Amino acid sequence: MLKVAILGATGYTGRELIKILLNHPEAQIVYLGTRREDRPQISQIHPELTGRIEAACEKLDMELVAGRTDFVFSCLPHTASMDFVPQCLDAGLKVVDISADYRLRDAQIYEKWYEAEHTDIQHLAESVYGLPELFADDITKARLVANPGCYPTGAILGLAPLVSRGLIELENIIIDAKSGISGAGRTPSPTLHFPECNESVAAYNVGVHRHTPEMDQILSQLAEKEISVTFVPHIVPMDRGILSTIYVHLAKEISQGEVEELFADFYKEAPFVLLRKDDLPATKDVWGTNFCHLALRSFGRKAVIVSAIDNLIKGASGQAVENMNLMAGFERTEGLL
Amino acid sequence: MLKVAILGATGYTGRELIKILLNHPEAQIVYLGTRREDRPQISQIHPELTGRIEAACEKLDMELVAGRTDFVFSCLPHTASMDFVPQCLDAGLKVVDISADYRLRDAQIYEKWYEAEHTDIQHLAESVYGLPELFADDITKARLVANPGCYPTGAILGLAPLVSRGLIELENIIIDAKSGISGAGRTPSPTLHFPECNESVAAYNVGVHRHTPEMDQILSQLAEKEISVTFVPHIVPMDRGILSTIYVHLAKEISQGEVEELFADFYKEAPFVLLRKDDLPATKDVWGTNFCHLALRSFGRKAVIVSAIDNLIKGASGQAVENMNLMAGFERTEGLL
Amino acid sequence: MLKVAILGATGYTGRELIKILLNHPEAQIVYLGTRREDRPQISQIHPELTGRIEAACEKLDMELVAGRTDFVFSCLPHTASMDFVPQCLDAGLKVVDISADYRLRDAQIYEKWYEAEHTDIQHLAESVYGLPELFADDITKARLVANPGCYPTGAILGLAPLVSRGLIELENIIIDAKSGISGAGRTPSPTLHFPECNESVAAYNVGVHRHTPEMDQILSQLAEKEISVTFVPHIVPMDRGILSTIYVHLAKEISQGEVEELFADFYKEAPFVLLRKDDLPATKDVWGTNFCHLALRSFGRKAVIVSAIDNLIKGASGQAVENMNLMAGFERTEGLL
Amino acid sequence: MLKVAILGATGYTGRELIKILLNHPEAQIVYLGTRREDRPQISQIHPELTGRIEAACEKLDMELVAGRTDFVFSCLPHTASMDFVPQCLDAGLKVVDISADYRLRDAQIYEKWYEAEHTDIQHLAESVYGLPELFADDITKARLVANPGCYPTGAILGLAPLVSRGLIELENIIIDAKSGISGAGRTPSPTLHFPECNESVAAYNVGVHRHTPEMDQILSQLAEKEISVTFVPHIVPMDRGILSTIYVHLAKEISQGEVEELFADFYKEAPFVLLRKDDLPATKDVWGTNFCHLALRSFGRKAVIVSAIDNLIKGASGQAVENMNLMAGFERTEGLL
Repeated sequence: MLKVAILGATGYTGRELIKILLNHPEAQIVYLGTRREDRPQISQIHPELTGRIEAACEKLDMELVAGRTDFVFSCLPHTASMDFVPQCLDAGLKVVDISADYRLRDAQIYEKWYEAEHTDIQHLAESVYGLPELFADDITKARLVANPGCYPTGAILGLAPLVSRGLIELENIIIDAKSGISGAGRTPSPTLHFPECNESVAAYNVGVHRHTPEMDQILSQLAEKEISVTFVPHIVPMDRGILSTIYVHLAKEISQGEVEELFADFYKEAPFVLLRKDDLPATKDVWGTNFCHLALRSFGRKAVIVSAIDNLIKGASGQAVENMNLMAGFERTEGLL
Repeated sequence: MLKVAILGATGYTGRELIKILLNHPEAQIVYLGTRREDRPQISQIHPELTGRIEAACEKLDMELVAGRTDFVFSCLPHTASMDFVPQCLDAGLKVVDISADYRLRDAQIYEKWYEAEHTDIQHLAESVYGLPELFADDITKARLVANPGCYPTGAILGLAPLVSRGLIELENIIIDAKSGISGAGRTPSPTLHFPECNESVAAYNVGVHRHTPEMDQILSQLAEKEISVTFVPHIVPMDRGILSTIYVHLAKEISQGEVEELFADFYKEAPFVLLRKDDLPATKDVWGTNFCHLALRSFGRKAVIVSAIDNLIKGASGQAVENMNLMAGFERTEGLL
Repeated sequence: MLKVAILGATGYTGRELIKILLNHPEAQIVYLGTRREDRPQISQIHPELTGRIEAACEKLDMELVAGRTDFVFSCLPHTASMDFVPQCLDAGLKVVDISADYRLRDAQIYEKWYEAEHTDIQHLAESVYGLPELFADDITKARLVANPGCYPTGAILGLAPLVSRGLIELENIIIDAKSGISGAGRTPSPTLHFPECNESVAAYNVGVHRHTPEMDQILSQLAEKEISVTFVPHIVPMDRGILSTIYVHLAKEISQGEVEELFADFYKEAPFVLLRKDDLPATKDVWGTNFCHLALRSFGRKAVIVSAIDNLIKGASGQAVENMNLMAGFERTEGLL
Repeated sequence: MLKVAILGATGYTGRELIKILLNHPEAQIVYLGTRREDRPQISQIHPELTGRIEAACEKLDMELVAGRTDFVFSCLPHTASMDFVPQCLDAGLKVVDISADYRLRDAQIYEKWYEAEHTDIQHLAESVYGLPELFADDITKARLVANPGCYPTGAILGLAPLVSRGLIELENIIIDAKSGISGAGRTPSPTLHFPECNESVAAYNVGVHRHTPEMDQILSQLAEKEISVTFVPHIVPMDRGILSTIYVHLAKEISQGEVEELFADFYKEAPFVLLRKDDLPATKDVWGTNFCHLALRSFGRKAVIVSAIDNLIKGASGQAVENMNLMAGFERTEGLL
């Protein structure tokens, strides 16, 4: 039984991680860390866990973590995460970091977008980007996995087959994403006050969202050329889910059937990617699941890809467990179906 | 043209008041006050007002108000309101106070429930409770009207005919109210963060909500006996609306038809109370209106009254304008149909 | 491995049942029946099941069911259920019926409220009401369990300790329930069209909802006296969850602490009932779980009980699996934590 | 006082039209037509109108309409509308048609997209496209105005300045629109059943929505070249509002400031178009108003335009009244601020 620590258990990704791990036959939660001053029962923080787990949050003490656990999930916010991850690694633990701290290979890009110095360059170099559909082999061998952002997960899965086979114009990629509000975290703010964001849809951070360099990095790697996508996120009045509508120019005319075949082939061993052919995915279809549903439509040289994920599962905690499964040698889908 | 000041224009009741007054043929907004340090355009605070009113918020300066206006709406929170209302009255202005400061006749009860000293006992004594269905004559002559709370408005309108005619057991009145979230105001909090209160319904302040003594006071006055209701408010994931489901014991068996006749008679001159006979009101039926829809069902000696209002209109700003209309000698429905 | 059939798999209770059983270590779905003419893959009906179960719906053929399965869940609507249940029982299968067909012991009451003749009086007599907190022993021995309605589950759990200990006035029980919209099933109607019921709360079937005689029957049995509750259901704009606010008169003055102790004692062996002492339950706290959260408040001789369940889990499919666990000799919580 | 008829008063556009006209100082509703067999009071159909208008729906009888009214709004669905509009025009009435029947100048395109023969080619030729920001002069002189579709309104307003000044690549226009659910009308369907579309976002009719040829027609006219946009509509769980996120390639590099100046100049006399410079519009900012809020962001040669309208007001009934105001010689903003 793998002994698991969760750092930062009081947010939404922590909560979802706990719920998934409670049904995981080979992992056991033995430590729940928080930066809070008090030491609440986790069920006081997340009442839906009452009767399912009895455990108090503990302070973030890496000696405790090292002495008691084999595997660490960091759900801490960016910059906080890189304060603790090095100690976990040095103690011989494996880590999936859900923050953004180890996603961007270039520390300067990190510093530009996150407006903070990167203080753990050493481990940044060895971190593996935790998108199992693309990097399963590396993840299997990794001791530090950077769990992808929610928007990049949905967008990259929708684009990877086309980009890696050189079938689209790389300078004309548009990602229009619509996210439920849990994606913004658990901290109250005027914008996320119910009567402000309910019954409303809005774009935000047009062209300047921090997930943009992450998409660019991975897509560029696949294309072996510099890619700079146009990314516009939107907030939609619902708890969770991300729908990414992706607009591309095909490099040559290809029939929709051929594109679908390409996707089917590319994802033939991907247990969590599903190609919808007859209808279009709604985010509700993946609610609470680790699946990404994709659909394609092409018109001459233009194509639209629709990608649906649950931002808290495939876009965060589910994918984190998928990564753990690979790193620990478990069945990749364990606890996730 | 009545020159109107709004103190505390940046909240939800301020916004709704502005929207109503913009369509009022005999009133004109000439002052928008705020406790904020900056002086924003009101359309920056409420973007839906853009292009409909161009005015900057001003600081709360009673000389300005006195010099420029005839009539004051205070949308300030309780305790803040009684800091300014006396000066308005002393300057000869008429005032509708939307806060709770002048609703409870007994300052000790105010102090108990609001945990603050009442600092304007003098004007408290002359204030009139602004429920026009019951007190139109007094309101017409008043210079200070205390606008009722949202919950009391819906509940009292549902109970007044029965209580004032002595037809129910006074010790057995239960009010189960369901409110949209704007009722809690515009300040963000963990409880009102979208992913916390969306897709959820909850009771709060069971038996200890501050609107309880207000209901007790008015109903006791109608009954000419002490009444102490059981009141449980609930929060429902929607922007606005209050549905009050009221449970009473009839003092004797009366047919549903007779009760309906009683209500029809009691409210025969009330332009904003509507008795629904064939179906039941939903809060959506009164969305954005100053109406209260009522329906009755009786079973032997038990009866249920359902009352629907828009908490921001009949429960706040609409009723405030209705009071202004009476105080200024306008048609009672002016600007409200 | 228990071989399970689901009759009527295309509705919401069927979907939730499948999701629960997919994670149940001792039960396996081997038959999915539908009254539809076509034979769709179940994942076409419930896209969220894609990749988790591959199975086509089959027509309702009791020979197939009898030949292949050990245990039957009927998710058929009332009257349709009693067309198939007898054949299942005669074939030696055990049955949990989620419809209303076997809940009311008195066929005349059934016929009055459901406006249909009861055609299986024989098995009605042996059916056990499937509320495990009250009837676990009988359920364990039963071959036909009538799964409780969603509203009765929440209400009876909130009342049972008080009623069975004779601590409340039986003629003064009021249940004000607020339900998410999935409780009304999957058939579109004008009332449940999104722009009609969104942003609105409404009462319906005041005093005449079909779940009323079910509550009366069980509570009367506990009290050993006739009870007739006042029950008013409401529709709230959310997918799922029921909050029942229950108003009672205590037979004598009892402190809140004593009432809480009574509840704690009454439910000391109930794995899915949780008493909240410090705060009040929201339906979100039980979302997707088989728990019922209860809270109590008393004021002199009046008391309020708040009860929260997920109408599709503890109020339907989760409780059905809980019953299966008891009937099949599994751990009662298997698959449900 | 202009005497107004509404054909098809029982849907959402009819309801909104009535609400606007009730506050219009120069127009009076004198006829409410329906295709229903019964003759309900309009307040039975739209309970929120109770106490504000007392009128029964009448059958669609053009003699009645001609004898009693000066001006007709048709809120009938497409194909039904062109059954009645000719008779209104022949009787000398002016008409705003909210259906799609007179929007597409080329009857063959109509027939292809709407799969119905166009039976009123004669009046089609004279109809004017009712987007006042572009065609106010023609509307003023028209006797038949085709009110624009909701999606085209938001999209064309966002594109018109750029297209008409030749500043973008015409083959690369992408419109990603997110609509509230009232846009789909009042008829229940499985897709719009609350528990299906709530808490979910989905694309639909990708590249094949009927509003596409309408956008193409108007934009082509502005560009004086054939344009074929890529249009993907989405459904968002809210009552109303459309946010259109529009992606274009600038023909040359232009600064964001210059583009904003261009828009400010283009719309300098447009009372209902508002350019947001400092922040981005949410659909809530235009809820219930006839405004279109626009914002621009440019990055090198790429630009994003965000356009927010209320689909039922600027996207339907508000714009219809704006057109009436022009056709009848009233102030353009009358009844709409």
